[in-house]
Amino acid sequence: MEDSTDVQSRVAEKRFKLTRVGVTGVKKPIVVKRPWGERTLNATLDIYVDLPSDQKGSHMSRNVEVSGELVDKTVREPVDGLENLAARMCELLLERHEYASYSEVDIRSDYFLERDVSGRKKSLENYQIRAKGEGYKDGEVKKFVGVTVTGWTTCPCAMEGVREKFEEKYDEISDQLKDMPVITHNQRNNTTLMIEVPSDREVEVNDLIDIVEGSLSAPTHEILKRDDEANIVIQAHENPKFVEDVVRDILSKILKNYDDFPDSTHVEVRSESEESIHKHNALAERVTTFGKLRE
Amino acid sequence: MEDSTDVQSRVAEKRFKLTRVGVTGVKKPIVVKRPWGERTLNATLDIYVDLPSDQKGSHMSRNVEVSGELVDKTVREPVDGLENLAARMCELLLERHEYASYSEVDIRSDYFLERDVSGRKKSLENYQIRAKGEGYKDGEVKKFVGVTVTGWTTCPCAMEGVREKFEEKYDEISDQLKDMPVITHNQRNNTTLMIEVPSDREVEVNDLIDIVEGSLSAPTHEILKRDDEANIVIQAHENPKFVEDVVRDILSKILKNYDDFPDSTHVEVRSESEESIHKHNALAERVTTFGKLRE
Amino acid sequence: MEDSTDVQSRVAEKRFKLTRVGVTGVKKPIVVKRPWGERTLNATLDIYVDLPSDQKGSHMSRNVEVSGELVDKTVREPVDGLENLAARMCELLLERHEYASYSEVDIRSDYFLERDVSGRKKSLENYQIRAKGEGYKDGEVKKFVGVTVTGWTTCPCAMEGVREKFEEKYDEISDQLKDMPVITHNQRNNTTLMIEVPSDREVEVNDLIDIVEGSLSAPTHEILKRDDEANIVIQAHENPKFVEDVVRDILSKILKNYDDFPDSTHVEVRSESEESIHKHNALAERVTTFGKLRE
Amino acid sequence: MEDSTDVQSRVAEKRFKLTRVGVTGVKKPIVVKRPWGERTLNATLDIYVDLPSDQKGSHMSRNVEVSGELVDKTVREPVDGLENLAARMCELLLERHEYASYSEVDIRSDYFLERDVSGRKKSLENYQIRAKGEGYKDGEVKKFVGVTVTGWTTCPCAMEGVREKFEEKYDEISDQLKDMPVITHNQRNNTTLMIEVPSDREVEVNDLIDIVEGSLSAPTHEILKRDDEANIVIQAHENPKFVEDVVRDILSKILKNYDDFPDSTHVEVRSESEESIHKHNALAERVTTFGKLRE
Repeated sequence: MEDSTDVQSRVAEKRFKLTRVGVTGVKKPIVVKRPWGERTLNATLDIYVDLPSDQKGSHMSRNVEVSGELVDKTVREPVDGLENLAARMCELLLERHEYASYSEVDIRSDYFLERDVSGRKKSLENYQIRAKGEGYKDGEVKKFVGVTVTGWTTCPCAMEGVREKFEEKYDEISDQLKDMPVITHNQRNNTTLMIEVPSDREVEVNDLIDIVEGSLSAPTHEILKRDDEANIVIQAHENPKFVEDVVRDILSKILKNYDDFPDSTHVEVRSESEESIHKHNALAERVTTFGKLRE
Repeated sequence: MEDSTDVQSRVAEKRFKLTRVGVTGVKKPIVVKRPWGERTLNATLDIYVDLPSDQKGSHMSRNVEVSGELVDKTVREPVDGLENLAARMCELLLERHEYASYSEVDIRSDYFLERDVSGRKKSLENYQIRAKGEGYKDGEVKKFVGVTVTGWTTCPCAMEGVREKFEEKYDEISDQLKDMPVITHNQRNNTTLMIEVPSDREVEVNDLIDIVEGSLSAPTHEILKRDDEANIVIQAHENPKFVEDVVRDILSKILKNYDDFPDSTHVEVRSESEESIHKHNALAERVTTFGKLRE
Repeated sequence: MEDSTDVQSRVAEKRFKLTRVGVTGVKKPIVVKRPWGERTLNATLDIYVDLPSDQKGSHMSRNVEVSGELVDKTVREPVDGLENLAARMCELLLERHEYASYSEVDIRSDYFLERDVSGRKKSLENYQIRAKGEGYKDGEVKKFVGVTVTGWTTCPCAMEGVREKFEEKYDEISDQLKDMPVITHNQRNNTTLMIEVPSDREVEVNDLIDIVEGSLSAPTHEILKRDDEANIVIQAHENPKFVEDVVRDILSKILKNYDDFPDSTHVEVRSESEESIHKHNALAERVTTFGKLRE
Repeated sequence: MEDSTDVQSRVAEKRFKLTRVGVTGVKKPIVVKRPWGERTLNATLDIYVDLPSDQKGSHMSRNVEVSGELVDKTVREPVDGLENLAARMCELLLERHEYASYSEVDIRSDYFLERDVSGRKKSLENYQIRAKGEGYKDGEVKKFVGVTVTGWTTCPCAMEGVREKFEEKYDEISDQLKDMPVITHNQRNNTTLMIEVPSDREVEVNDLIDIVEGSLSAPTHEILKRDDEANIVIQAHENPKFVEDVVRDILSKILKNYDDFPDSTHVEVRSESEESIHKHNALAERVTTFGKLRE
């Protein structure tokens, strides 16, 4: 029935099911429309389905066609959210790959938000956003949305060590030193938050960015004049944080902000500091469900 | 009891357990001694423990000390395998972090093997090897070892499409064309195999490299003279492979080669082709256990 | 005169001039309007000035302000070309850094063009574009524009080696083999072309992309159905190319296409093939002027 | 005379000279023996020659053979320095490519040195080293050697801004504040130094590492106990540095340390800070000769 050159549809010699088969690193512009405005994102997509044990190959050109049909038309009809686009792609993938029982789409993109610095200047800040869909043969589609925020952390441990030394050395001012932010090492930090979006709920990525950015010692900014710079250095040192603190503060805010999300909701948080004092990085991570967090 | 500057040992404000806390990207030379010889590897390590909900921070300097003690001494006493080093590090991490119930070590390194080309020339070929340990509070330690091999794949689907067109065009020779390797797109491929090593078994990475390299359309070589080049081009085209075929061939060989490994043994195989004909890559993957493969 | 905290304006202790001082990796969306349409690019910028020997530091926040003023306003007033934006930034940098005698701006971005496949399907293809400006104290501003195109190359040398072997083996068809494209190794190739734009001329990046894409063995496409795939495999094998051939073909076309550009016009071409048959890449490069090419 | 499949030796259709043609990303272990000991480096090499306008292709397999012959034998006969190996490869490349008038070899590797922390503990620290050779038809060979060091910088400008604010707020202690290191942003910094080695001189990479590491606000360490950490934080803040300061301090030390090197000696220094307070990096650079620096 199949034409002879449909090599993919032949019977596999070694009969093993494959977990994921597809294309990675597909680059596409995607137009997203949110209540507050429209954005053109330059996205990178990975698009997979599973493959049953008796079929030789997956028709990967169908993955790129699904991307072509749904992504390319966002130029005319903007999509209402990357995670919704990923979910619709998952559904269409299962239609086109009639042999598949699972589909998966992962979308990543740079993203920009205007931020105030000291209530005066506007600075356009760069973030990364990510969305993921998982489609199942029974019609279920899971959606996930996430952000990566670059900010900075100041080390509480080195600050205490220095404060002790200073209290010995500058004994007349040691009372005042107790209130004063003291030197420590601080560094660029990249923190990622990703959560599942229940089918009847919405998550705004700008909120996720606010949650993560507000959980670091301080945000980073592209433009800072001398006075802003001093203020933010003070803010960061009044707010010393381990990567452990960053992850826990985010988990705490997520539980509060999305308190009506079911126990099964998946969440992962990962905070990595490019330690100024070391050549290696420091990382803290929690991968879990809302239910486990509520225990 | 702890001195006042042990900020890590303070009680956490937001009481959430953390899945993994530690250091990433630690670079170290490691000397490994195998029955067939000794190698100095330039490795990169990630070293984690978990963190209970009531403790503010993990003492990350202990992770680097564990690495310092066990890795640095391999210069004098070579270790008998990266996975055994990872396992010992996991045990020592749980001793040093008395509050942890889980430890994890991931080690990656470049690796070299001498290869024959046409039985005449020796060529020193580059591979990546990887080992992982997971330590549990009850004393259990899981070990994993893996390889990434760069080879190449020739596409069977495009070959059939071209063959059909050639049979129309070169009709006089169409019988011979059936046996003859026909043009197709081919490309660099990176394939990763990682398997669990049961506590009473051994896995030789050189065997894993042989298994992966033998499952591609052809290996890649640093040095090829004109005649070798033609022979390997023919070999690759007599052996066209989808990434799906590569993964299944490896799974088949693994089951046979390690047939006494228990059903619980974890295995993952991932094959990614940097498609010459596309800007994106093609990927096939299976993550499973020996038990599932034996079904 | 300067306020005490203007540390940058202090006198340098070690009096050495610095070639370039500035910021790297600034991410910005840029809206570009060309005669054929408008595009939102997600760009990355490096922005430098030089620093005289007697001044301690460069005021780097001015670099980001110049970017903020000229780039951010493209959302309202699209710029007519990345190289023109780079040039205007260079001029403004020299105004703001009154001590500088040189300014430099480098802009890189992903870029997309619609392409026909077999005259039927549209496929949105990804490219990289780049622009550079160099500003001088005497008012001169040099502009450069460039592209990186991912395509593929088929090796002419291995093809000849195989053809010889085939002529021995398939002797009855050896006459026909002379015309027939024969198997060889082929692979993904990234080729970069960058040329200077004389102040009274214009260069269209779409033309540069056409020139580079047309100089490879064949273009790459995101979407290819089975028949297109076979046709492009044949096209690539009828057009075998060394990286050396790719560079020379581009140089030849550039000279013809921009034959009224002056001898001083800078040009650089770099073609790198991710060899399917080797673990290393093959690279050919020419960095020169139109005058030298015309010799 | 040449056999018919030597496609490279054919006459080029488009007659343009090529600046560099060769292989990139060749990975090799190299054994180096210095007066103080022996090291096995895992190196990556780029190997080029130029190509005259009338020859179609360069015989790239000769590049890998030259590497095979000279690099692989270092396992038995360690080489006395990466730059000497690069120089010998350049000479042999010109012998083997009889048509070439220029050859170039670039070698990069991770590198490790033991460092004391507070005179007590040993810590094995990671650096990158690099060597380059340039061969010319008249027999001249230029050699270059370089290092990249990861350390950290503390910002002098933000420190002054904060100090001023603190002097207003903590007026009773403001006299003591003048001596006390005050909070600022600090961050990981990567600094590269590369210098030409005159044919009758030697440069020890360990000296270059000392020069660069001593020019940053403080070094970074893999292992630091609490007390060491506080001391190094204080050291870094007593030594605030712009990237501009780092480059100039290195230039000053280089001139002094190698005061008998001729005016023609090439030198380049590049210092890049991964700003904790910004999402972008700060960079300072000088590319010049000893003669220019001595002016």
